[in-house]
Amino acid sequence: MKAIDRLIKRINDTNSVLCVGLDPNDIFFTHKIKQIEGIIEQYREFCYKVIDSVHDIVPCIKLNIAFFEPLGPEGLALFKELLEYSSSIGLVTVSDIKRGDIGSSSEAYAKAYLSNGAPFESDFITVNGYLGIDGVEPFASLADKNEKGLFILVKTSNKSSSEIQDLKTLGENKAVYEKMGELVEKWGENCIGENGYSSIGAVVGATHKEELQKMREKHPKMFFLVPGFGVQGGSADDIKCAFDQNGLGAIINSSRGIIGKPFSIEKNEKRYLSDEEFKQMIIEEVRANNEKLNSVRRK
Amino acid sequence: MKAIDRLIKRINDTNSVLCVGLDPNDIFFTHKIKQIEGIIEQYREFCYKVIDSVHDIVPCIKLNIAFFEPLGPEGLALFKELLEYSSSIGLVTVSDIKRGDIGSSSEAYAKAYLSNGAPFESDFITVNGYLGIDGVEPFASLADKNEKGLFILVKTSNKSSSEIQDLKTLGENKAVYEKMGELVEKWGENCIGENGYSSIGAVVGATHKEELQKMREKHPKMFFLVPGFGVQGGSADDIKCAFDQNGLGAIINSSRGIIGKPFSIEKNEKRYLSDEEFKQMIIEEVRANNEKLNSVRRK
Repeated sequence: MKAIDRLIKRINDTNSVLCVGLDPNDIFFTHKIKQIEGIIEQYREFCYKVIDSVHDIVPCIKLNIAFFEPLGPEGLALFKELLEYSSSIGLVTVSDIKRGDIGSSSEAYAKAYLSNGAPFESDFITVNGYLGIDGVEPFASLADKNEKGLFILVKTSNKSSSEIQDLKTLGENKAVYEKMGELVEKWGENCIGENGYSSIGAVVGATHKEELQKMREKHPKMFFLVPGFGVQGGSADDIKCAFDQNGLGAIINSSRGIIGKPFSIEKNEKRYLSDEEFKQMIIEEVRANNEKLNSVRRK
Repeated sequence: MKAIDRLIKRINDTNSVLCVGLDPNDIFFTHKIKQIEGIIEQYREFCYKVIDSVHDIVPCIKLNIAFFEPLGPEGLALFKELLEYSSSIGLVTVSDIKRGDIGSSSEAYAKAYLSNGAPFESDFITVNGYLGIDGVEPFASLADKNEKGLFILVKTSNKSSSEIQDLKTLGENKAVYEKMGELVEKWGENCIGENGYSSIGAVVGATHKEELQKMREKHPKMFFLVPGFGVQGGSADDIKCAFDQNGLGAIINSSRGIIGKPFSIEKNEKRYLSDEEFKQMIIEEVRANNEKLNSVRRK
């Protein structure tokens, strides 16, 4: 089954479009950690607790490799372990790696994440398309072959995304992100699944409502990964235009909005949560987000 | 000493502007390897031989992480080991990682490569600026603090780099890569070293002579990392405009042009080279390239 159809099946099974972003930024831990050696163990414990809490109430989990690389090879071994574990308990996995290079290098990256049995095998990865099709093609072709998927950066959620992505092009008077969107559509034409969506999708930030709406109207077969919901400022109302008439077409990521909660409680109340309290808190956050998102995605 | 001044000192000491790209693509090895477990050992042996051959005749080495990630955490442990070894014998190190993300994630990546004592500590890294300044700022500020440097992708060497990078912008009628170049100049203003160049430089491909010339004229304080020389099609004549009147302003990368040579000999002559033959071949290639580049960089 194509990656996009596996994802849509999970969305229907869990009745959720929420993607939980696992960004174990070490700021969550600095209040407890005395020695650097302890970080990996804390990361592991934290991540397993989150995964176990959410595995049957969300379709997918997004692991951001940026927060594992500072821990070196051991951090990446943990990243690998968490991908395997998440997958083994049924979660669709998104590796947020934002890779992109020229042909032979992209081919090597693709092999690392999209091959069957690859060390960092994932259902989806995020890709940076600034280098153009010969940097994206190796990802797209391996994804197609192995029933994996991509989310290509089109319009990111950060404020200064406008510096390059919003530049208006001559002649057509389109923004760079719109041109990137057109390329993503073209690159994804061969990967349309049985639900009418392509396994080659786009990252479009929740913080840019107009752009999200424009992208939805223009690209009915493009599935979106929407970051920036919650802590970064995007509201449920901002993202309702990301969905089609069946409430499909996007997964909405929340990272700090979910996993930061137990931490802030610990900090404010100056006490540690029990595992049970921690899990309950995560589950409550996810349920509240599911409800909020479900109320806007079905018009 | 700022990263850019360390690099320029090495250029003067070795009388070379050649950057040897260590892209140990497994195609170099497939003819010998029976088991996947053997790859790491072959990679290690190959890379050490190259580093030992070139360490006193080139200023710097570029390690492309794309070719280590498919080997999983062990591959990244080797990447780390090679960075440390290269640095210990005096080479300036460039980690070709092409990372780029939003603020907190870029900060995490920066920590992994640009902190003192970081697991993958490097003198320079390559960065993708598609996300704009808040994706680049964490790299630039840590680079400035720790005397490290960046090469930000401006105009890459691949053919389809035109798809996004050459789009002409409305009003100013500038290409996207030119706008990126202007941003790189702005981002690098605080990092100018004693030789007049900034530690925040740009990647501009040897395959785009006109663009390279335009960039040189417009940005006299910007140092370039120039890929695409040799196998990818850029000639010594194509890149002479990258240099200033003192023959400085750029390092020229060659990967397959240097390290592919011993392999192709082995393949064509159907025999294995001795370590001594291997090293001599690499040294001869480097010397020939040094001569070619020195003849054009001093007008």
